[in-house]
Amino acid sequence: MLVHTDYLWFNTKQRQAFIRIIDEVAAIVKTSEVTDGTVLVSAIPIASGVYVNDWEDGLISDFQAWLEKLAPSGRDYQHHRTGEDNADAHLKRTIMGHPVVVPITGRHARSRTVGADLLPGVRRATEETRRHQGDGHPGI
Amino acid sequence: MLVHTDYLWFNTKQRQAFIRIIDEVAAIVKTSEVTDGTVLVSAIPIASGVYVNDWEDGLISDFQAWLEKLAPSGRDYQHHRTGEDNADAHLKRTIMGHPVVVPITGRHARSRTVGADLLPGVRRATEETRRHQGDGHPGI
Amino acid sequence: MLVHTDYLWFNTKQRQAFIRIIDEVAAIVKTSEVTDGTVLVSAIPIASGVYVNDWEDGLISDFQAWLEKLAPSGRDYQHHRTGEDNADAHLKRTIMGHPVVVPITGRHARSRTVGADLLPGVRRATEETRRHQGDGHPGI
Repeated sequence: MLVHTDYLWFNTKQRQAFIRIIDEVAAIVKTSEVTDGTVLVSAIPIASGVYVNDWEDGLISDFQAWLEKLAPSGRDYQHHRTGEDNADAHLKRTIMGHPVVVPITGRHARSRTVGADLLPGVRRATEETRRHQGDGHPGI
Repeated sequence: MLVHTDYLWFNTKQRQAFIRIIDEVAAIVKTSEVTDGTVLVSAIPIASGVYVNDWEDGLISDFQAWLEKLAPSGRDYQHHRTGEDNADAHLKRTIMGHPVVVPITGRHARSRTVGADLLPGVRRATEETRRHQGDGHPGI
Repeated sequence: MLVHTDYLWFNTKQRQAFIRIIDEVAAIVKTSEVTDGTVLVSAIPIASGVYVNDWEDGLISDFQAWLEKLAPSGRDYQHHRTGEDNADAHLKRTIMGHPVVVPITGRHARSRTVGADLLPGVRRATEETRRHQGDGHPGI
């Protein structure tokens, strides 16, 4: 079985950031030479998540407002007794999801470019965004 | 590595619909001749999701009421400035989950039927339902 | 392709329990001799879930309070007309997530121990906890 592993590193300045990683992931898939299989995108540290959705400013704002409502910051969480202050980030990323698995299929591939290796629908599905929260550790 | 890809298409008439796809997925697994591995079930378009749970009418009603409470429709979402009106569907499917990965194991297989290839527990776990929301695009 | 399947069984006495399974999963990975690939951790019965996060008492308390707020028990759920009383557990595990897929990579492996086969970050990511809820069925 062909397995290819690679890493993306991000440093964020804000407490919460959304990062679009679809192009980076597609480039890694191309390098891997996998034409039929899956991509697993997993985020570290643990208060970050990975999800698949439209990369649209309004929708990202909606996600931010919604996450703040469902898992508010600034509360007296038990987790903060450890000295951490990001319990809400742990909850928010639980909502958004953590590991993402996306299909790769070359069945319809023509030009052997990544774009062609992915079906139109799948290409859309791989519009991964990445949400990195919390303590400023570099993460993938 | 044996990789098998197939597609299911659905047209829904309602804004929100739950569709039971376990039998279709099991049939695809059987066709694939994969006896040990995983099934990845991924939904497109992006406002649809896939999840694993009991196919029970009361529970589905509970999910619908709960999703409407956590991610209400009819609000003034930023995403709607693009002309779309389904921001709530994006949020709802985030709660429900998107890609589902289910184990296939033939370790206990006897008759080589799909039923036997899947352990009893796993068979139950593959009672996939599929939630398609939003703009009426055909989806898989 | 090397595929290895194993099972963990738990009996819980409480209606809701969090169980740490990282060591068990890491031992299974070691036994499998898979050095590059993925681990799929899937929970049965259906009202149980699997998630990846810090194993910290305060955070687990936060999760419990938060889940009770988002998906309260003791309500008149439609699902209860079947005789079951755990609709809230179905909702809670939907929030927490169900199947978890974690990367295994031996790229940096030195000593062939599990610890070395997993990168430091990945090792942290595999700090799986397991939430078993509901009707007391043994589950994996």
